[in-house]
Amino acid sequence: MGTIGLAVIGAGYWGPNLVRNAQATPGLRLQYLCDLDADRARKVLGEYSTVAVSDSLDEVLADPAVDAVAIATPAATHLPVAMKALEAGKHVLVEKPLAATYDEGRLLVEAADKRGLTLMLDHTYCYTPVVEHLRNLVRGGGIGSVQYLDSVRINLGLVQPDVDVLWDLAPHDLSIFLSILPDGVQPIAVAAHGSDPIGAGRACVAHLTIELTGGAMAHVHVNWLSPTKVRTMIIGGSSRTVVWDDLNPAQRLAIYDRGVDRKDATEIGEQTRAQTMVSYRTGDMVAPALPEKEALRAVMAEFRDSITQSRPPLTDGRSGLRVLSILEAASASLAKGGVFLPIRSVETSTEGVNA
Amino acid sequence: MGTIGLAVIGAGYWGPNLVRNAQATPGLRLQYLCDLDADRARKVLGEYSTVAVSDSLDEVLADPAVDAVAIATPAATHLPVAMKALEAGKHVLVEKPLAATYDEGRLLVEAADKRGLTLMLDHTYCYTPVVEHLRNLVRGGGIGSVQYLDSVRINLGLVQPDVDVLWDLAPHDLSIFLSILPDGVQPIAVAAHGSDPIGAGRACVAHLTIELTGGAMAHVHVNWLSPTKVRTMIIGGSSRTVVWDDLNPAQRLAIYDRGVDRKDATEIGEQTRAQTMVSYRTGDMVAPALPEKEALRAVMAEFRDSITQSRPPLTDGRSGLRVLSILEAASASLAKGGVFLPIRSVETSTEGVNA
Amino acid sequence: MGTIGLAVIGAGYWGPNLVRNAQATPGLRLQYLCDLDADRARKVLGEYSTVAVSDSLDEVLADPAVDAVAIATPAATHLPVAMKALEAGKHVLVEKPLAATYDEGRLLVEAADKRGLTLMLDHTYCYTPVVEHLRNLVRGGGIGSVQYLDSVRINLGLVQPDVDVLWDLAPHDLSIFLSILPDGVQPIAVAAHGSDPIGAGRACVAHLTIELTGGAMAHVHVNWLSPTKVRTMIIGGSSRTVVWDDLNPAQRLAIYDRGVDRKDATEIGEQTRAQTMVSYRTGDMVAPALPEKEALRAVMAEFRDSITQSRPPLTDGRSGLRVLSILEAASASLAKGGVFLPIRSVETSTEGVNA
Amino acid sequence: MGTIGLAVIGAGYWGPNLVRNAQATPGLRLQYLCDLDADRARKVLGEYSTVAVSDSLDEVLADPAVDAVAIATPAATHLPVAMKALEAGKHVLVEKPLAATYDEGRLLVEAADKRGLTLMLDHTYCYTPVVEHLRNLVRGGGIGSVQYLDSVRINLGLVQPDVDVLWDLAPHDLSIFLSILPDGVQPIAVAAHGSDPIGAGRACVAHLTIELTGGAMAHVHVNWLSPTKVRTMIIGGSSRTVVWDDLNPAQRLAIYDRGVDRKDATEIGEQTRAQTMVSYRTGDMVAPALPEKEALRAVMAEFRDSITQSRPPLTDGRSGLRVLSILEAASASLAKGGVFLPIRSVETSTEGVNA
Repeated sequence: MGTIGLAVIGAGYWGPNLVRNAQATPGLRLQYLCDLDADRARKVLGEYSTVAVSDSLDEVLADPAVDAVAIATPAATHLPVAMKALEAGKHVLVEKPLAATYDEGRLLVEAADKRGLTLMLDHTYCYTPVVEHLRNLVRGGGIGSVQYLDSVRINLGLVQPDVDVLWDLAPHDLSIFLSILPDGVQPIAVAAHGSDPIGAGRACVAHLTIELTGGAMAHVHVNWLSPTKVRTMIIGGSSRTVVWDDLNPAQRLAIYDRGVDRKDATEIGEQTRAQTMVSYRTGDMVAPALPEKEALRAVMAEFRDSITQSRPPLTDGRSGLRVLSILEAASASLAKGGVFLPIRSVETSTEGVNA
Repeated sequence: MGTIGLAVIGAGYWGPNLVRNAQATPGLRLQYLCDLDADRARKVLGEYSTVAVSDSLDEVLADPAVDAVAIATPAATHLPVAMKALEAGKHVLVEKPLAATYDEGRLLVEAADKRGLTLMLDHTYCYTPVVEHLRNLVRGGGIGSVQYLDSVRINLGLVQPDVDVLWDLAPHDLSIFLSILPDGVQPIAVAAHGSDPIGAGRACVAHLTIELTGGAMAHVHVNWLSPTKVRTMIIGGSSRTVVWDDLNPAQRLAIYDRGVDRKDATEIGEQTRAQTMVSYRTGDMVAPALPEKEALRAVMAEFRDSITQSRPPLTDGRSGLRVLSILEAASASLAKGGVFLPIRSVETSTEGVNA
Repeated sequence: MGTIGLAVIGAGYWGPNLVRNAQATPGLRLQYLCDLDADRARKVLGEYSTVAVSDSLDEVLADPAVDAVAIATPAATHLPVAMKALEAGKHVLVEKPLAATYDEGRLLVEAADKRGLTLMLDHTYCYTPVVEHLRNLVRGGGIGSVQYLDSVRINLGLVQPDVDVLWDLAPHDLSIFLSILPDGVQPIAVAAHGSDPIGAGRACVAHLTIELTGGAMAHVHVNWLSPTKVRTMIIGGSSRTVVWDDLNPAQRLAIYDRGVDRKDATEIGEQTRAQTMVSYRTGDMVAPALPEKEALRAVMAEFRDSITQSRPPLTDGRSGLRVLSILEAASASLAKGGVFLPIRSVETSTEGVNA
Repeated sequence: MGTIGLAVIGAGYWGPNLVRNAQATPGLRLQYLCDLDADRARKVLGEYSTVAVSDSLDEVLADPAVDAVAIATPAATHLPVAMKALEAGKHVLVEKPLAATYDEGRLLVEAADKRGLTLMLDHTYCYTPVVEHLRNLVRGGGIGSVQYLDSVRINLGLVQPDVDVLWDLAPHDLSIFLSILPDGVQPIAVAAHGSDPIGAGRACVAHLTIELTGGAMAHVHVNWLSPTKVRTMIIGGSSRTVVWDDLNPAQRLAIYDRGVDRKDATEIGEQTRAQTMVSYRTGDMVAPALPEKEALRAVMAEFRDSITQSRPPLTDGRSGLRVLSILEAASASLAKGGVFLPIRSVETSTEGVNA
């Protein structure tokens, strides 16, 4: 396959970023920007562009020059838009979340599987140098066993008309967790608390507590009402602990050789109290040099490569399903006052299948 | 009453701070440092001190020059030590928590009430310039109605032999909440999640979610396993939001004139979506000038004044009971997998009574 | 005048930013990107652009659709390129510094004056919301009288082939100073120290000390060898002091109601020592809400408006001359071991003249 | 020699710190706190102390139980007080600066030499874990060759009645430089600029530029008028660069494996421009774990050990002379408008001599 013809669907908040990065990615050829509001699309492209504008998804999908679509429309429309594209034989990159519900998402995964088409989630964070570093470090055993995760994602955010703060912000944290955690440490149950102190009709502040296989716990705090922006994730391990502060570009990652160790019970007398069973390490901190690059460029490259190499992308449809399974359980927990609910498991992609 | 004779009981972690501040407080006369281990007490006082050392609580309480005691022994001993002191007619300042259980704490409150003696909690944070400022601001309506509270208190902490991280650290957050919240916004139910990833036999990481009258939610994250220290509290209000970063001495408090407002439903058409019902304010931030002073000095002064003026101290025995009532409900919730449990209410001090 | 036809000259480091912002500015119509290396220009425009590429300045200047040019070529070429454009009757926006020498810059100013054409400097910082706020505050008397300025601009920077660190970085600080200082507080003499510890053949670290009318002092530290990036400016005033940290987007400006006052000598006895003549204010700090916007967009708008309204732009040719006069005196001081040398004064624009 | 009997002279700003740390140092026995104002001394000791108060230096020096004195009186009195103590055969620890002038300081060094007594400067910073780490790193070659030093020490400071900001603050920076620089990289000339924008009668803002053997340059910015406190030192080296932020206790030192290298001219063609002669390294940053300990405790221990071991202390009288030689040259440069002036060299201690 030579150059891949691409159409971007949706010229709203995220579409312009897709347009810009698609244009800068070798091997992709941007053919259309498609939006029901053609004027909006024209405005995004500006006066100096040769890219075509269309207000008809059908027209775009009918064009044989279009091999793939990148979808940035509201979540509720992901199922019909993506399904139409898959049925037209197009590869699909879709903005998170995969769909409005787990069941809708499953239909898309199956449709892509059946046709051998790429179905990829635009989990942008998973393509940042930070998360790439973390994936290697954490999955590679570099912090020992995972003891806890804590993510805070708060700021003054637009109250969304259709989703609560969990569905709006937590997909970022969840897709990052799924991307960096070792295979043996996976979410199995979730409890959620939320509140709506401004009467918006949906949770504007929420806390997720996630039980992981092996007993560790992950926590996510998302909040639309904080005037101060925080983007911090701590990943505690038995041998090292990582602190990621995404708002500190000069030092996003700090890897501490510090922590608490538990001595083996056989080393110490039975009577000794818990305090004597732990010891503390206070070592240096290392902030690795990380390149500054736009993650969405890497998303585009992965989309291109998964198509040309006929392999599942790093963030395939199933990764999107996993995020949906946690979100749905969290919403159910929220409705039930915060009890822990089990998370549906998603089987990994079968060999030879693409999405 | 002239100068108040004082004995400090306990020469461990906190005792030396009590000794130092008692000596610097006019109107107090430090008579004894008492510890079962007299050598430890002697070492705390150093070679140049005229303060007496005793290893006998009875001896200390029998001395008529002792009017009051400040207790810094393990929580499990608070009931017997403080009760003995009250029965000997001494005023009592006790390190948090008031006692090991709510019922024990109640016995102390009743004993102090009966004898008209001061029973005061050393909730040190409540005497910092920051909390004093917050109390005036929040209780005085300066942030509008309270929308949410979020407190993070994490660091590499000593795993305690007898209490979990909730009982060790959360009393700080809870006593601060109780100190600054308006009367109409009080804790009514609590849910707790915790984990023990190092096998210490007790929760080392914990999250508290507290339901407040009026629908707002407070959240507390306490953690002994974080190599990076965080001490941050956010208090979101309808007109302003405050961020307190206690590790930034140059700017502990930041008061943002920013937030989200909800328009009245009558102002806008019924069909309009939630998004249009909220508006955003982006105003200036003010960091008030705050004095740097040692809070424990103010604790000592309040203890002295509550005795000489025969009035309840700011952090009286009932404030200690309130903290215990939340901690006990949280522990019960932890044991039941995180369900919300109601918090026992504590009546305020009856008029004319001192503790 | 309707839409202004524009050509960008130079497709190197800064040119792409001019291209992007020109395209987004209503009232401007980007006609050409011109570079001796047409391939480089084509690469900057990308595959989707309708903008023309030219490798001939003559061709561009001969096109009557071109009303104005924006020049982003090396400083040594500013004189010939800008002069050619002015002689062809085009308005000129030129990247800092105006020219390689004061005398060259003067020729350009005179040429623009003679023809009534706009000659504008791209002192981008002067168009940021921060500098706009500072200009109003400082020139408007909001900090009292100016007591000192201190600017630090250090990072790991590309050692330039043709200029030292002073000429590379200090134009930013100098144009900001000139933009915000009141008319009665202007640079009159400068001393410079520099060093070249890596043997690059030119100063890589430099310090400028500038004497201002009225006795206040400004200091600039520029450095290509610092692994940590700092962009801080302090403007001390008699009633308030401003700290600008440009790397802290959440709080770029902090305005402190703190400082040192001097009591009038008549208020206190003659014998009293200096210490008693000063008093300290410790008030609040205010961080004003500032919009986040791209300054180069405002540069383009000012260029457009100065042309259509036939008025001198905020950063006219003379502001460029003033920066050159300080740089030349600084270079001379550097060569003479750091003595103070006077700064040539630049008369302000004559009425009715455009540049 | 067994326990060393000590008297602290001066109960003003610094005296209480000497008292506290002397009492906590094994091997020292605090005998007196001496001040012309005995009440002030009594207040410093408090009501619970067994230490004697005296308002007579003669009385203190006549007491054979006093082996050594620690002097914290104004600089102008250092010569008479310290000389009297040395003549009485007492070892001397003196607050910086050693004396009011170089010549006075020299008399003290000679007097101590003659009698074989310890004369030690209380350059407290030199005993911090940070400076100890820096000394080993920089003198041990860990950053390659030194390329530049830059120190900023600014805050809202008390305008001193008798000294300008240079003499008040720069001794800290200078003693640190002298303590960490390799033997072959020493100050040889200094230029100073200063200003007095508040009419205090002495420089309140000052900049020092110091030429070092080998061509590197050190710069110091001291300022009493800054509402924001900065304590930063950068030490640029050919292989690594260190940034010390003393106001960031969680990460005081950051050691960057980043910098600029110069390629050997023989490796590249003669025509190649300077830009190609340098290359950039972007490696990790390491923040070493440093103990938190009170430096003044280490000062006291070094004073004790230099006495009992009859060896010069780390910060001996000559280190104090070196600081005075730079300060005097800086003051002369300030008076002459900022020209570079040579720094008097101080021979190192002769063998077998103690001070």
